[in-house]
Amino acid sequence: MNTFGNIYRLTTFGESHGDALGGVIDGMPAGIDVDMAFIQSELDRRRPGQGVLTTARNEADKVEILSGVFEGQTTGCPIGFIVRNADHHSADYTNIKDVFRPSHADYTYQMKYGIRDYRGGGRTSARETLCRVVGGAFAKLVLRRKGIDIEADILQVGSHQLQGTPEERRAQMEEIVSAVRGQNDSIGGIIGCTIKNCPVGLGEPVFGKLNAALGAAMLSINAVKGFDIGDGFEGVGLTGSQMNDEFYNNQGQIRTSTNHSGGIQGGISNGEDIVFRVLFKPVPTILREQHTVNMVGEEVAFTAKGRHDPCVLTRAVPIVEAMAAMTILDYVLLRQTNKI
Amino acid sequence: MNTFGNIYRLTTFGESHGDALGGVIDGMPAGIDVDMAFIQSELDRRRPGQGVLTTARNEADKVEILSGVFEGQTTGCPIGFIVRNADHHSADYTNIKDVFRPSHADYTYQMKYGIRDYRGGGRTSARETLCRVVGGAFAKLVLRRKGIDIEADILQVGSHQLQGTPEERRAQMEEIVSAVRGQNDSIGGIIGCTIKNCPVGLGEPVFGKLNAALGAAMLSINAVKGFDIGDGFEGVGLTGSQMNDEFYNNQGQIRTSTNHSGGIQGGISNGEDIVFRVLFKPVPTILREQHTVNMVGEEVAFTAKGRHDPCVLTRAVPIVEAMAAMTILDYVLLRQTNKI
Amino acid sequence: MNTFGNIYRLTTFGESHGDALGGVIDGMPAGIDVDMAFIQSELDRRRPGQGVLTTARNEADKVEILSGVFEGQTTGCPIGFIVRNADHHSADYTNIKDVFRPSHADYTYQMKYGIRDYRGGGRTSARETLCRVVGGAFAKLVLRRKGIDIEADILQVGSHQLQGTPEERRAQMEEIVSAVRGQNDSIGGIIGCTIKNCPVGLGEPVFGKLNAALGAAMLSINAVKGFDIGDGFEGVGLTGSQMNDEFYNNQGQIRTSTNHSGGIQGGISNGEDIVFRVLFKPVPTILREQHTVNMVGEEVAFTAKGRHDPCVLTRAVPIVEAMAAMTILDYVLLRQTNKI
Amino acid sequence: MNTFGNIYRLTTFGESHGDALGGVIDGMPAGIDVDMAFIQSELDRRRPGQGVLTTARNEADKVEILSGVFEGQTTGCPIGFIVRNADHHSADYTNIKDVFRPSHADYTYQMKYGIRDYRGGGRTSARETLCRVVGGAFAKLVLRRKGIDIEADILQVGSHQLQGTPEERRAQMEEIVSAVRGQNDSIGGIIGCTIKNCPVGLGEPVFGKLNAALGAAMLSINAVKGFDIGDGFEGVGLTGSQMNDEFYNNQGQIRTSTNHSGGIQGGISNGEDIVFRVLFKPVPTILREQHTVNMVGEEVAFTAKGRHDPCVLTRAVPIVEAMAAMTILDYVLLRQTNKI
Repeated sequence: MNTFGNIYRLTTFGESHGDALGGVIDGMPAGIDVDMAFIQSELDRRRPGQGVLTTARNEADKVEILSGVFEGQTTGCPIGFIVRNADHHSADYTNIKDVFRPSHADYTYQMKYGIRDYRGGGRTSARETLCRVVGGAFAKLVLRRKGIDIEADILQVGSHQLQGTPEERRAQMEEIVSAVRGQNDSIGGIIGCTIKNCPVGLGEPVFGKLNAALGAAMLSINAVKGFDIGDGFEGVGLTGSQMNDEFYNNQGQIRTSTNHSGGIQGGISNGEDIVFRVLFKPVPTILREQHTVNMVGEEVAFTAKGRHDPCVLTRAVPIVEAMAAMTILDYVLLRQTNKI
Repeated sequence: MNTFGNIYRLTTFGESHGDALGGVIDGMPAGIDVDMAFIQSELDRRRPGQGVLTTARNEADKVEILSGVFEGQTTGCPIGFIVRNADHHSADYTNIKDVFRPSHADYTYQMKYGIRDYRGGGRTSARETLCRVVGGAFAKLVLRRKGIDIEADILQVGSHQLQGTPEERRAQMEEIVSAVRGQNDSIGGIIGCTIKNCPVGLGEPVFGKLNAALGAAMLSINAVKGFDIGDGFEGVGLTGSQMNDEFYNNQGQIRTSTNHSGGIQGGISNGEDIVFRVLFKPVPTILREQHTVNMVGEEVAFTAKGRHDPCVLTRAVPIVEAMAAMTILDYVLLRQTNKI
Repeated sequence: MNTFGNIYRLTTFGESHGDALGGVIDGMPAGIDVDMAFIQSELDRRRPGQGVLTTARNEADKVEILSGVFEGQTTGCPIGFIVRNADHHSADYTNIKDVFRPSHADYTYQMKYGIRDYRGGGRTSARETLCRVVGGAFAKLVLRRKGIDIEADILQVGSHQLQGTPEERRAQMEEIVSAVRGQNDSIGGIIGCTIKNCPVGLGEPVFGKLNAALGAAMLSINAVKGFDIGDGFEGVGLTGSQMNDEFYNNQGQIRTSTNHSGGIQGGISNGEDIVFRVLFKPVPTILREQHTVNMVGEEVAFTAKGRHDPCVLTRAVPIVEAMAAMTILDYVLLRQTNKI
Repeated sequence: MNTFGNIYRLTTFGESHGDALGGVIDGMPAGIDVDMAFIQSELDRRRPGQGVLTTARNEADKVEILSGVFEGQTTGCPIGFIVRNADHHSADYTNIKDVFRPSHADYTYQMKYGIRDYRGGGRTSARETLCRVVGGAFAKLVLRRKGIDIEADILQVGSHQLQGTPEERRAQMEEIVSAVRGQNDSIGGIIGCTIKNCPVGLGEPVFGKLNAALGAAMLSINAVKGFDIGDGFEGVGLTGSQMNDEFYNNQGQIRTSTNHSGGIQGGISNGEDIVFRVLFKPVPTILREQHTVNMVGEEVAFTAKGRHDPCVLTRAVPIVEAMAAMTILDYVLLRQTNKI
């Protein structure tokens, strides 16, 4: 199940330390100008090594488009792409090869498949999300033409809600993350996402509700443990009279005077901003000794080595946007099948 | 998109006030004894009119199995079923026919399809979930044989966390709901669900992660606005060292000493209890005047009529269980394709 | 896998002698007038007992629409329907209960599922195609509005090619079938189908080629053993220069001067008539003694009882049309996702 | 729709003269030894330039596996692969750029997508089948372990049935193809395929019948215009009594004494050899002048240039086998979901 979507579909492959990651985008509408600089810039947004908040490791992550684009335009044929991995042949994996790292997927993969590529986490590495960003970038190229805009942002680091200007928020975040790094620990948080100018009518009840599709998209991202829409869990104390979004007529256009619903009613977009939140747990890799079990069942101590992000939120922002973009484009295309 | 699942698949149909609701269960394993009393009892759990907390309207909701069962056993062929609706021919819909009720799906359905069956909310009525309960009941018959147990419960009504014995919790809930009803208002809350004895290895990364599948299942239920797993949003302040689940060897079986992950790591079940929460918004039907817009765009006042549940949580418990059961069975069957 | 289609999807259930057969049509465009007389007339076309060529058994086969239609129009919501079976409770199945009838599916179902509903062939009965005809009838309602016309006809009974006027063809057929019946035998043949006014551009290469979709549709019908398109197997001796369809400009419209391709090139419709053939084997039920094996592996003699069609071609014509109609509508809807 | 299969799934991309073709294999069982020499040898079988019968153009077609294999074994994670195209930058496409070649897909692609990669036929080139051969080779690695053997062969070139020893058949074929080449023409034919040791129980009625799946697989191959199974169209004159396959008990194993059914009854394999035929039309590229229309609708003469196979049958044999292998493996895996 490495394919995402119904009409606009991304199929991905690749491990952290294999030869390459990549994917196939199927269902891309034809005749779209391919802005390669934009696609690469989206990839760059999720790259580590961009600041004090992320690891200094410098990966190139250049995407190579292999098909589906001709003379700068999409052809309607599948877009194959790869991103080569750096050469990791000399790396030493002895400390993770035989051990199940706590709260990583080493154990579950080993049990499920009886074999695992342990190098850098293999398929379970967050490096896999590279391919999602490429799929999302192509989707954004289409959504742009429809005027649909998707923007994600960090709302909360740990229990701290970021506030103020972008600079202030960034400063707050750096402070928290630096403190966590100083303790050889890691921290999670919440990313919010807003989709503007989404047309009315996206969503395919009863099982393909737009909120269900967005939720599945987000919950498929590494480290995501929660999703809510509109007022979400924060609004659990509100009553119906407080939470209902009343309609009014805004110069011929039907709008709601509030948006507690987060832009979706009955599983279908209502034209208001779609607003949701995505919860990320702390990365499980921490530079502290932890107890665990090895491949032969012995209890052992384990301490991670190397440089590791104590907080992935900054890099996760473009991934949230990418998954949202693919979902929305998929549902825009599905919407086109509702009438004849 | 009225089909749910990959291998174990439920396809549903039906409107609140049409002739019947029903569905088709495909992929049901053959040779399972069909306990009709159990299936009907599951349906009865979601029926209104069971106590002071729910509406007094008395619906029979008898399920009729039309195929796929022979001499008391499943045959591997699709199971068709219907649940007849009571005769609503004399009902009066004049007050909802031409108006978009706030936070209902009247407006989005009208915009999407250009037509809607307004009687009792049509397809958007929570009555649709009847079919999910039937699909879930058959799934439970299979899961039982594997020893997998699924149990949901109300954790929170509005912002009040229920505590104590079942009787005490029920009393707390009745008090809150009665107060809300007295104000002609409605209230939401949170349902928790625990899946016990789930085998290791369920989940199909990277897009078919078990948490993503469970999230999509829950977010497809009417009125659900949020989902989280393990510590979820409540644990957002924890660091990696606090949240990681360390492995230990429990007499030959690898277990984790804590379960912050909620039984899923890397999108695959790890053998611990799967624990998640589902957020329900307040039902939008309230017996108060609200502002809205009618079919010709005029701003009008709207007041709901009749008897309406001010809180759907009690009836939602078996629905959460049903969606969980179908998801888990689907992934148990998918799991059987992982090796040759 | 009792679901057919991608966007326009039919899910079916039901056994020959169970309570009812039925299905769910999902993806039906909204706002289509539902001509119930037409739908019932399509069902009547496949009914036995219409002439000397088919069995005299008289089944009502009244379709009951349970959802998805409101005030005579489709709503975009799933259309549930059932067709009740006559009461067969008194029937005697002792001669087929424990035996594997030659070239029937008794043996393969028993081996696959470990249980089978032997009454009247259960799920493997051609009665299952009732539901396909309903799905096809709804599809035809939509295709009609696009001017797309689908017509099937019997080309060949056994090795005899029917020729002349409809009356002459019918007479030839009656003669052959009567002779076969007189010998307690059965006969197959070939049905041809032509789709007129199909727009250019239907088909989703490389795996969803329109010919592949039509082929799969036809080969899913009971007793179908072959499919070809355009000149097909008859044209195997032609060379490229004889078989290529040259293009010309017909007053601004690009057309081909011949149609050896059968209206599909590269898996995509080219606007010419789509022309294909479907091969039906003789029905395996014959009123002669045959050798076979029973459930405990003993070799036994078996002779079918009752009245049986010696030739299903007449009844198969509307089934071929129904599968073609569903396929074409599905691809018309998919086509609408090719551009933004 | 560039994905094939349900559980074992191949997604492909790539154009004839783009940078690379490739694909993703999803659902590959874990722990299978990857015999790279075998995979490459399968690719070599479909390579042109192997004899007088095929074009002399020499393509390397080296497959590069990018993921999903670790220490020589499959990991259960998706297998990404690419095959680089030779550098065609200097090629001259002026004669095909603006013209719709007869019986090619130039016209239908242009109409469907509004743009096409005309270089070497782009996505519609038979070079696309490279990826199918890779997917089939991996499937064969699994089927081998189950003892399932798939073998295709050329039955007929044009209307001539090949007979005798392999050498004699090859000689007959060379003679026919040479004559056709001498006339600057092309020829089609029929490939037969036999699947041995297929277990009983493969096939998912009613729409996923094994014959329907095999038919769809074959009809998705370039230039295929027909498919039949068992006696097929050749047996149209036989009656039921002649065609029924009687069961007998072969030392405890239930077998049929004849195999007119071609190994499938009721859409499910019965344990006998699965036998089917695939009809290929002549390649449309011929070195003769033909009439056609150009991009602006003018009627023009067109003559193909370069070297072209007058007969693709030899190269099509491994493609037929590959599609059969993927289908059978997919259904073997689906079969594993029939019971719990």
